[in-house]
Amino acid sequence: MAKDIEAAAAPEGGEYTGKDYSDPPPAPLIDPEELTKWSLYRAVIAEFVATLLFLYITVATVIGYKHQTDAVASGADAACGGVGILGIAWAFGGMIFILVYCTAGVSGGHINPAVTLGLFLARKVSLVRALLYIVAQCLGAICGVGLVKGFQSAYYVRYGGGANELSDGYSKGTGLAAEIIGTFVLVYTVFSATDPKRNARDSHVPVLAPLPIGFAVFMVHLATIPITGTGINPARSLGAAVIYNNDKAWDDHWIFWVGPFIGAAIAAAYHQYVLRASAAKLGSSASFSR
Amino acid sequence: MAKDIEAAAAPEGGEYTGKDYSDPPPAPLIDPEELTKWSLYRAVIAEFVATLLFLYITVATVIGYKHQTDAVASGADAACGGVGILGIAWAFGGMIFILVYCTAGVSGGHINPAVTLGLFLARKVSLVRALLYIVAQCLGAICGVGLVKGFQSAYYVRYGGGANELSDGYSKGTGLAAEIIGTFVLVYTVFSATDPKRNARDSHVPVLAPLPIGFAVFMVHLATIPITGTGINPARSLGAAVIYNNDKAWDDHWIFWVGPFIGAAIAAAYHQYVLRASAAKLGSSASFSR
Amino acid sequence: MAKDIEAAAAPEGGEYTGKDYSDPPPAPLIDPEELTKWSLYRAVIAEFVATLLFLYITVATVIGYKHQTDAVASGADAACGGVGILGIAWAFGGMIFILVYCTAGVSGGHINPAVTLGLFLARKVSLVRALLYIVAQCLGAICGVGLVKGFQSAYYVRYGGGANELSDGYSKGTGLAAEIIGTFVLVYTVFSATDPKRNARDSHVPVLAPLPIGFAVFMVHLATIPITGTGINPARSLGAAVIYNNDKAWDDHWIFWVGPFIGAAIAAAYHQYVLRASAAKLGSSASFSR
Amino acid sequence: MAKDIEAAAAPEGGEYTGKDYSDPPPAPLIDPEELTKWSLYRAVIAEFVATLLFLYITVATVIGYKHQTDAVASGADAACGGVGILGIAWAFGGMIFILVYCTAGVSGGHINPAVTLGLFLARKVSLVRALLYIVAQCLGAICGVGLVKGFQSAYYVRYGGGANELSDGYSKGTGLAAEIIGTFVLVYTVFSATDPKRNARDSHVPVLAPLPIGFAVFMVHLATIPITGTGINPARSLGAAVIYNNDKAWDDHWIFWVGPFIGAAIAAAYHQYVLRASAAKLGSSASFSR
Repeated sequence: MAKDIEAAAAPEGGEYTGKDYSDPPPAPLIDPEELTKWSLYRAVIAEFVATLLFLYITVATVIGYKHQTDAVASGADAACGGVGILGIAWAFGGMIFILVYCTAGVSGGHINPAVTLGLFLARKVSLVRALLYIVAQCLGAICGVGLVKGFQSAYYVRYGGGANELSDGYSKGTGLAAEIIGTFVLVYTVFSATDPKRNARDSHVPVLAPLPIGFAVFMVHLATIPITGTGINPARSLGAAVIYNNDKAWDDHWIFWVGPFIGAAIAAAYHQYVLRASAAKLGSSASFSR
Repeated sequence: MAKDIEAAAAPEGGEYTGKDYSDPPPAPLIDPEELTKWSLYRAVIAEFVATLLFLYITVATVIGYKHQTDAVASGADAACGGVGILGIAWAFGGMIFILVYCTAGVSGGHINPAVTLGLFLARKVSLVRALLYIVAQCLGAICGVGLVKGFQSAYYVRYGGGANELSDGYSKGTGLAAEIIGTFVLVYTVFSATDPKRNARDSHVPVLAPLPIGFAVFMVHLATIPITGTGINPARSLGAAVIYNNDKAWDDHWIFWVGPFIGAAIAAAYHQYVLRASAAKLGSSASFSR
Repeated sequence: MAKDIEAAAAPEGGEYTGKDYSDPPPAPLIDPEELTKWSLYRAVIAEFVATLLFLYITVATVIGYKHQTDAVASGADAACGGVGILGIAWAFGGMIFILVYCTAGVSGGHINPAVTLGLFLARKVSLVRALLYIVAQCLGAICGVGLVKGFQSAYYVRYGGGANELSDGYSKGTGLAAEIIGTFVLVYTVFSATDPKRNARDSHVPVLAPLPIGFAVFMVHLATIPITGTGINPARSLGAAVIYNNDKAWDDHWIFWVGPFIGAAIAAAYHQYVLRASAAKLGSSASFSR
Repeated sequence: MAKDIEAAAAPEGGEYTGKDYSDPPPAPLIDPEELTKWSLYRAVIAEFVATLLFLYITVATVIGYKHQTDAVASGADAACGGVGILGIAWAFGGMIFILVYCTAGVSGGHINPAVTLGLFLARKVSLVRALLYIVAQCLGAICGVGLVKGFQSAYYVRYGGGANELSDGYSKGTGLAAEIIGTFVLVYTVFSATDPKRNARDSHVPVLAPLPIGFAVFMVHLATIPITGTGINPARSLGAAVIYNNDKAWDDHWIFWVGPFIGAAIAAAYHQYVLRASAAKLGSSASFSR
């Protein structure tokens, strides 16, 4: 097993040079060899399918719960029959948990253009791969929301189509800031979970990583559903906007690309330039890390 | 420990041939030797008990929460005393989590004919074992729902018996499609969790697998309880239909066999022909898997 | 690490005889040497403290949520301000998760006389230890509920004191059966999590065990709070009954000792005589266990 | 891997002396060398950022859910549109889970002056580091709540600003006791998760530790939100009090420093003098720990 860990930390079979980990070299911008491999296309397919399932389950939860709340309004439990915002937040966070778990070994488990951008900025994926992933994620999201509209046509439009919009009483600046901070929380968690230093030390972090990543999505939804409906995933916002195709949704749509991309870039910078700046010994307070 | 991993990946003591994992050979359709082993019958008993407990806890949650909502309607908390759809979704997902955890080492932890079919199509279980499991699951489900009816006779019928039916306003096609996609999410997670490649690399994935599998069930219930009550498990639907024995439940019953079986078959095909098609090196983007 | 695993599986330094695990010898009924060790008394103290915290947090959740529901009845959120049955079920399950996690290394993490009985019947703890644990658990539970009464005196009595009672409309037989099955689910999960076979194979199961055990408690509460308030832990029922000291609570009290003890005994028998009866090779279907 | 574990348990490269673990030496009160290392300042920055994100997400959840409950009061789901106390408890517990996960390897993941005090009393961090952490946590909390006020100015004041106050009907003594016990639960979990004995045996406990720590916070919130709003974190209480700046909040404010610090001190003493008093062999009942 020790060998596996070394192999993981030093994938080129490089020397083990006193450090207990070694950074993989930065991914090239364009890797022609990568384009000839089935593993790239398989990864793109996996991103497409995962984003489709993500939007299908989450938007169906949003629409279906509102529908049922109305439909069963004939008993004492009418007001509480739905799953509420808590249930919606669980749907988003829980789906990210299982989809990252399922696709981590195939595509890295991005399922979100902001995550892909963050990992590209940190030079963990090539430019070509990043672009292909983002296209696949957007198409998957559109198809996923389309399925929900097909299944629930009557209710889909009536209940807002799961689209991200600024709620009344919030300025565009507030919405943008909420998206930036929310995406920062998510991408910061992703970087913490995939830090090669951490992997060298605790070889099982990658296995556990999907859970905190899913929880990060859950938390951000609890906090910002009342403000923007919570995007932090441009593919999710695009998919809902394309299918719902409502003026208000399109007017605010830029917020859900600019915000997440800025948040992801800040998280990448924070991780690379502050947290990873020096790997000096931590002293005796690193209570959890020993 | 390295030896354990090898043993797990190459159970026949086969050679370690450069790959870091080796596929077990496909299970035979009929394995006469298997029929002589106590381990088979023990596994069938475990599936029966697990499915019984699954249906008992989940249907009791469905019925009991509706009963209490009515019964305590004498205080401010009446409207929200029950656990709601969110609580019901937790009951289904949480039970699958603990039952897969408990029975994984004994029977593989199927507890669902659709999962058994998926694993049979991938040639991970023999035909004989698959059939015995499905029979045990169906009998267990009937007994589990029967227990609930025995305990809550007055309320059981009044509150719909936990049976799966199409809600008003949804076509049969929509219900069937919802069952297909929902089961796809579940069986795709099961395949991802039990992939031998993954096991070779991260020897603890099997231990962690029950959690995402339980979450997959939780998520699908959040999304589709308003549409069909969520089957994705033919034994669960059969058990409730047999004990409730209502015309409407029987009329829609075929959906809850055909849908899950199609979904499981698509998931098996997706996993075998797309994701497993080539084990070529993943490139530098497999962020979580290293 | 391989050595650690061997040591764990064969703690006496016994021979490694072809099997990949070895059962520890049954615990003696009375072990005079054990009585001279600080580790025993430390374990008893840990059980006392853990059961005290368990009852304090859970009963405070039950009482506090009812109080607040009344108190804030001046806004639209009055009806839903409380945590509901779902929140109460989380309190019980979540506390068991963290307390088993914290005390597992000190006392084995029982926190429940029914669990102690089950492990005694399986000869995993000595009679002396089992009796001391049960006394400590009962005293801890009484102190924990006493704290809640001290803090919330006005509301404690008004809201039923967190005591377990049969709800209207359920017979004593139903309540007893619900307790038996509920405790079976819990103790079956405990046995599955502490199986030495499993430990030999997956050396991290003990670390993960608290999560499914906590979920088992969560699930049983979702299902049976409407029937009995859910005991499945005689110390919890005794503590609430002693402090609440209400006739109805005492009349039903035997159910919450007899039910859990029968359920624990059945789970111990099921595990020892069915699941562990033969350790023969599982065949190729043990999908999660490889 | 065995070597890694030894290295972790005996960081000075000390002898392996029969025990399966070795305590790290106590941290010095003032370590001049520590002050010259970037790792200290990086840790302080990480504590600041983590506490900022913690307060931002949690207070936004508190405020936003009350706002929405009022705002959408035009449909059947008005009464239950918000996330409720259960959602608020999840926000606090879930954020601690992901932030401890993210910062454990950088700063030890305290995010709470009471945790820092407890680890300082156990001599796991130096005095200088403890003071710097507490200052960073308090500044982070103030900034986090400030962000929420900036985003939700109209609603922030109307809904109490997320400040901790004694609810009507509870004495100061009750509030103080609730804070003491609540913090004890949290810090006891932290100590259990970071015990070097445990780490030696189960090398993955540190990785898993964030989950029970997050759950401890979740549980305490369920129990004591109706009493004090739940502090158990002086930085969280200070941040809300400074930004809300209301007389009532300041009058009760001492409770949220004295209570958590007493609770943390008791937890440190319980762990050091009772649970760690003797490392003698546990006997055969340590069911989960082998």
